[in-house]
Order: sequence, then C-alpha cells, then structure tokens
Amino acid sequence: MGKVGIDAVAFYVPHLYVSMDDLAAARGIEAEKLKKGLGLQKMALPDVGEDAATFAAQALLNLIEQNNLDPRTIGRVYLGTESAVDGSKPTATYAVEIVENRLATTYGPRSFKNCDVLDMTFACVGGVDAMHNSVDWVKQDPSRKAVVIASDLSKYELNSTGEYTQGAGAVAVLISHDPDIISFGDSWGIGSKSEGDFFKPRRYFEKTKLLKSVMEELNLDHSDEAVAKFISSSKSSFWNDPSERIEVFKEEPVFDGQFSNACYEERITEALAHFTEQSPTDFLDSWKHIIFHLPYAYHGRRIIFNNWLNWVKSSDTLKELEAEIGAATDHETKEWNKLAYKSQLYRAFVSDKIAPGELASSEIGNMYTASIFMSLLSLLAHSVNEDKDIAGDTIGFIAYGSGSKSKVFEGTIQPNWVKKIRAIDLFKALDSSKAMTSAPMSNFIS
Amino acid sequence: MGKVGIDAVAFYVPHLYVSMDDLAAARGIEAEKLKKGLGLQKMALPDVGEDAATFAAQALLNLIEQNNLDPRTIGRVYLGTESAVDGSKPTATYAVEIVENRLATTYGPRSFKNCDVLDMTFACVGGVDAMHNSVDWVKQDPSRKAVVIASDLSKYELNSTGEYTQGAGAVAVLISHDPDIISFGDSWGIGSKSEGDFFKPRRYFEKTKLLKSVMEELNLDHSDEAVAKFISSSKSSFWNDPSERIEVFKEEPVFDGQFSNACYEERITEALAHFTEQSPTDFLDSWKHIIFHLPYAYHGRRIIFNNWLNWVKSSDTLKELEAEIGAATDHETKEWNKLAYKSQLYRAFVSDKIAPGELASSEIGNMYTASIFMSLLSLLAHSVNEDKDIAGDTIGFIAYGSGSKSKVFEGTIQPNWVKKIRAIDLFKALDSSKAMTSAPMSNFIS
Repeated sequence: MGKVGIDAVAFYVPHLYVSMDDLAAARGIEAEKLKKGLGLQKMALPDVGEDAATFAAQALLNLIEQNNLDPRTIGRVYLGTESAVDGSKPTATYAVEIVENRLATTYGPRSFKNCDVLDMTFACVGGVDAMHNSVDWVKQDPSRKAVVIASDLSKYELNSTGEYTQGAGAVAVLISHDPDIISFGDSWGIGSKSEGDFFKPRRYFEKTKLLKSVMEELNLDHSDEAVAKFISSSKSSFWNDPSERIEVFKEEPVFDGQFSNACYEERITEALAHFTEQSPTDFLDSWKHIIFHLPYAYHGRRIIFNNWLNWVKSSDTLKELEAEIGAATDHETKEWNKLAYKSQLYRAFVSDKIAPGELASSEIGNMYTASIFMSLLSLLAHSVNEDKDIAGDTIGFIAYGSGSKSKVFEGTIQPNWVKKIRAIDLFKALDSSKAMTSAPMSNFIS
Repeated sequence: MGKVGIDAVAFYVPHLYVSMDDLAAARGIEAEKLKKGLGLQKMALPDVGEDAATFAAQALLNLIEQNNLDPRTIGRVYLGTESAVDGSKPTATYAVEIVENRLATTYGPRSFKNCDVLDMTFACVGGVDAMHNSVDWVKQDPSRKAVVIASDLSKYELNSTGEYTQGAGAVAVLISHDPDIISFGDSWGIGSKSEGDFFKPRRYFEKTKLLKSVMEELNLDHSDEAVAKFISSSKSSFWNDPSERIEVFKEEPVFDGQFSNACYEERITEALAHFTEQSPTDFLDSWKHIIFHLPYAYHGRRIIFNNWLNWVKSSDTLKELEAEIGAATDHETKEWNKLAYKSQLYRAFVSDKIAPGELASSEIGNMYTASIFMSLLSLLAHSVNEDKDIAGDTIGFIAYGSGSKSKVFEGTIQPNWVKKIRAIDLFKALDSSKAMTSAPMSNFIS
C-alpha cells in the first residue's frame, strides 16, 4: 500500500484579536505572566456573524481555491468540532453548502452531491478522529480524496481563569495518496477514560419556577394561578413556548483546569504506551518534532516533561542530564525534577522539537479541535521561513480531548512539503489581524 | 480480504409505552388512521433518568453480556446520536463509563483503556456513518473488533404533527471479521445536500430584554436600571449568570414533514444511483430484503415506491404490472401510478421485502439513528420466528439523515445468523413493555 496523508492545508482565523497587554490591563493583572508563563500574545475573536460553520466554510474554500481542487473529486468532508451550531444537522453541512454555492458557477450547482459529509465530536480531539477515519477510508482506493476540517471557537466566562485562553478558527487538510506534505504511519496509540474535566452540559430550568421566583423577588402575587395567567397571555416566544422545561446550552464550558491538566498528562502517557505496543519507538531519538493539542502555546512543553524525563532515564541521555544537574537522590526527587525542567537539555528539547509548533498558538489562542492542526502548520511555516529542510523528518503527534481521550500517531514530512506551505505565508497572514483596542474591553469579550 | 460485518447485535428499548389508541383518544383523532396509515401501534417513552447515554450503556452492556465478549478486545465504541447529552463530551463516554464500572469486578477497572470512543452526528444517519467508518477500520486487521451504537430519543412538541412518531432506544452491533450475522459489500452510495428539513437549532434570547418584557407585562418599572438591579440581586442561577445571551436548546426539533419526505426521496434516489455506479445492481432481483431508516413503520414502503416503479419500468416486470393494471397512457400517469401503488405486484414487493423490517418500528416508534438497526433486527427476529432460512440473502440498506444525506449499501446474511438472533427474542421482549394508561396522558408526554 502506498503512502497516505496530508497533501494540502489551509486555514481561516478571524481577523479580530485582543492582545494580552490589553486584556491584562483590563483585568488588572500582569501581562508578562500570560506572555512568559503561557506563551500568550493575542487571542483571535469571531466577528459578528462568524461561528464554527463559517470558519469551516472559509477554510474549506481556501483549501479548494489555493490548491485548484475540483470539489467533485472530494469523497468526504469530515468535520471535528465542539462548537456545533445545531444538535442534529451537522455543522459540516452548513460549511459545504456555503462553499458549494460559491463554486457553482465553475463546477455546477451540486459539486458535493455524492460527498460523505459528517461531524465528529470528542472535545478537542474530534478533528484528529475525523482525520484518523478519513485516512483509513482513503487508504482503500488510490483515487480517493478526503477533506478534514477542524473548526471551533473557544469562549470562556468573563473574568474566569479560562478567559486568557480564548481563540477561534479552522484548519482544513486534504487527505490523499502520495501526499505532498506528510504521510502517516499505521499505529495509533489511544488512552481513554470518561472524565468530567471539561464539558458543555445542558442546564435545565423549570419555566414556572423561574417566573415564580421573578414575581416573588419583585414582591408580586406569585401563586400558581398568577404564573399560569402570565404564561398564557405572554407574547414572548420564550415564555409562551409549550415546554415547561427550559434547556439552556452555554458555549462557555464547565471545567477544572488543574484536573484537566492531570487528565491530559495521564491520557497521553497511556496513549504513548499504547503506541509503543504497536510500534516500539525511541521517542527522544526518532521524533524530530512533536506536535500537541495546545489549549495555550506553552501547554505541550509543560505537559510532556514527565514523559520526557522517563524517556531520558531509560536512555543514555540520562548521563548528559546528570552531567549538567547531578544525579538524583531519593530524598530530593522534587527538587531534582525542577532542575531537570530548567536544564539546558530540556530547554534544547523544547526549542528544537516543540517551540516551532507553538508560534501560531501565541498569535491565535485556543482553537480547540483546530489547535493541533494549526500547530503543525506553525512548525511547517516556521521551517519554511527559517529555510530549514525538514523533509524526511518524523513528527510525533500528541492529541488530547477532554472527557477524555488521547491519540498518539506519527507522520513523515514529504519531499514536496515546501511548495505547499510557502504560498500560505501563515505568519504574515496572522500579522494582518486587527487589534480591538478602540473601545472598552467589555464591549468585545462578552 | 475476508468478510467484515455484524457478528452480534443487542438492543435496549425503554419499558414504558403509550399506545396509539390512548394517544389518539387523548387527542380526539381516529386511531385507525395512525395504525393503518402509518403502521403505528405503540411508542416507547423514556423513564425518569433515562436518556441517550443510558440507552447506549444498556445496549452496550447487553451486547457484551449476551455474547460473552471480553471488553478489552473491543478497539472502538462509536456512537451515532442526535440526542447528545453534552456539546463537548461525547455521549459515548458516558455509556462506556457506566459499562466499564459494571464490568470492573470481572475485567478490572479500565477495560476500555485503549478503546477509541467517539460520537458522530448527522441526524438519523449518524449510526450508519459510525458503522461505515468502523467497518473500514476493522477491515485493516483480522484481530480488530468494533462496537457501533445508535442511540436516540425522538421527542416532539405536544399536539404537533410529530407527536405520533415519538420513540426511544438504542441498538449496539459488534463489527468483526468472519461475522455470524451479516457481511457488508464494499460499495457505499451517497446522496448529500444541505437542507433545512429538520434541525435542532440553538435559540438566542437576550436576558435583559426577557426580563424587561416580563416587568413590562406585569406593569412594573422596566427601565434599564430596574432590570440591572433585579439581575444583580437575584439569587437565581438563571438570572445572575454572567452572560447576557441566553442560549436555549430544545430536544424537540424544528421540522417540515412534507419537505423532509421530499428530501428523503431525492437523497435516496441519488444514493441508489451512486451505488449502482460502483456496483451495477438489479435491485428488484438481487435485493431479497430492503431495510430503511424508518421515522414511522410504513415510511419505507411509501418512500421507495417511485424508485420501485422505475425499476419495474426498466425490466421485464413491467409486463407483469401491465397485465395487472393495464399500460400507462400519457394522460393518466397520476392515476396509473396510484393503481401501481395499490397493485398486487407492489403489495407483494412490500410484504416480501419490506414488511418484516417494519414490525419492531410499529411497537417502538422512531428511534432516529437506531431505527435502521432496529429494522434489521426486526427482519431477522421475524425470520427466526417464521422459521425462514434467509442465509445467503442480500439485504439492501437505505439510510437517511435529515439535513440531508442518504447512504445505500448492501449486506449478505451469513450461515450462523439464527444462533445469534434466536436468543434475543425481540418481539417477546417488546411485548413485556408497560402501557402508560393509568393517569391523564398529559402527565406522560410532556
């Protein structure tokens, strides 16, 4: 069987952003903590009328137009999102509809008539799931092409600890045989455990109780009769809806950041182990680059440390580390680990293998499902800008979705990667975004 | 490559139902219209505490226990649903968590530790999408096993035209090599077009406007200040939530039944054409049974008629039809079509190839994603009860999801099918459900 992987990539990020300087000033905290501690610089914000469907449409259109693809040759459009715009109709259908209409003059009215369109949901790993399944599908026939889109907006409560890690956008990739950018290996490591580290639950309210409490707080007659009379005469579609139960869905998640970090670390450790069961791998040696799901820019470098230390301990590299910071003793493991985290050896590991994938995240923020794809694009675009020839390099991918699941897989950069990446000019495109500074912050982030 | 398909099947349907006689009486309409016209007898209703996650858990547990499966050998659990309980965390994770805990004493605490768990969303076709992708995954390695679950509850507004077609439940299937029940062919016909025939949108309300209108309707001070004062002092988590925007999500869909029927017919016609492009098929001759997505029991026999007529017209069977009802003339096509629909030939087609798959739907109602899987189980269970040996028969599957997409594919019944189906005793199990008749209908259906 030939190689299958990413043949082309495109993205869309909203053109508005809030800088960490402005956000920190508005919240009365130190900007340097966000910038140096988490690697945050800007966060992209959707404009009026933008959502996960429009991001996806724009990324899909960019992919098709920038690569002169004939949409009729695309057999599936699979979308990973946790910002779905409907509970039944896939967000992918809205994106495809927009693009189909835009392409109608060139390709006729139904260019996706026989295309398998679908949404997949598993928090931030749903886009990788969509790609995993599409790679399996493409493999079976040399003529098959699939598009995978990851599209999301990350929105948190005002003044919450998640507020600095907002972001938005979409990445689309074309999966084909003999890909120009990356070919994927056959091993997929999985770590899976149901956890409540982050979710977007429905919240239930009873309409009559809600009204009763309002009328009571307003010191009015709040008898059953008074409430029933109000409902029956109300002109509001909210109050005169036939359902007693009001189901509220908030885009802002319920989450526990510390617990979610622990879940992330446990799941990726399990997925790495499951990956090596299938493909025994010397991660330190064979992975030239590591691409993570990044809720914020520096998350990968923080969360991989304990695994890195274990890789070092079981290799000759331990001697290098000990030469730098001394050998560990039983009594001071914690201190020694801190020294190891600050060692030149770990810093070099981070700057060589992780940092290039963080750069775009610093400029955009959390794109949920799209973060790991944007991190890949960041590595590739940075390598083009630095004139680094990384063809033949192996990339380790470490994906995570709260709730919780990790997928670990491997890709190899293909000889033609530069020609597909140079034209995208990622960082120049990101530089053209517009800061939102001309009005009070509260107008923009609500 | 060997055969891949359904090796085992299990289901869960809530134990409560409302009969069409009782519902029709409560609504003041003729029960016979629902029973003879649509094939409806009962509709399953969730009990307190039941939802798509618990249905899925029960179906998964039944599948594992009834077939003595070791859960650690199951590489994926993919769920199709349009009744997801969360916007980020997959409903499948809740189901797996429940089952993992139930199995912990036998298999240890993490029997799904390396299992790929995921939700897929495309209205009623999401379960078939989950199976399609799982079949592709299983194909690649003879040791792989996947579980696909379709789980949903179909809930409509009180007094709406959808109220008679409610239902609930889940079906789980095990996908493996050398399956005992059905092996699938490699052709998957697809018809896809973004349509708004049925959806579950979010509805947005502005909190201050909502409160303002209440205070105005109650003839109180409804100035901005009065509203702001109320919000700041309210003890209700609904009113003091920091978001101004209230997003309401209703389980009850927005839909247009007639338009959805038209979309269903157009999409399946496109998918049938796409299927024959891949596998030229004489549907009349080679499909011994046809299994549909059934929003109500008789939907398949109604919606396939025009395609059947085209199949007949392009075959020798036309002579049989003309012998029965005469030849069509240009001036009376509509009348002639009506005669064809009522012909013995079409009735025989329906009773031979479609009716056995309708029986369970009459007893349960619309299970959304699970309907097509339950229809398959209905055919198989009925054939066991009738002592029909259908091994070797080809089944045509016609799936549809609003929004809109159809998938058409083919399966062949395997020699060992009876031993896996007999033990399930579907119709006996359905007979043990409990009617809800002892209290006013309004208590049960809201």
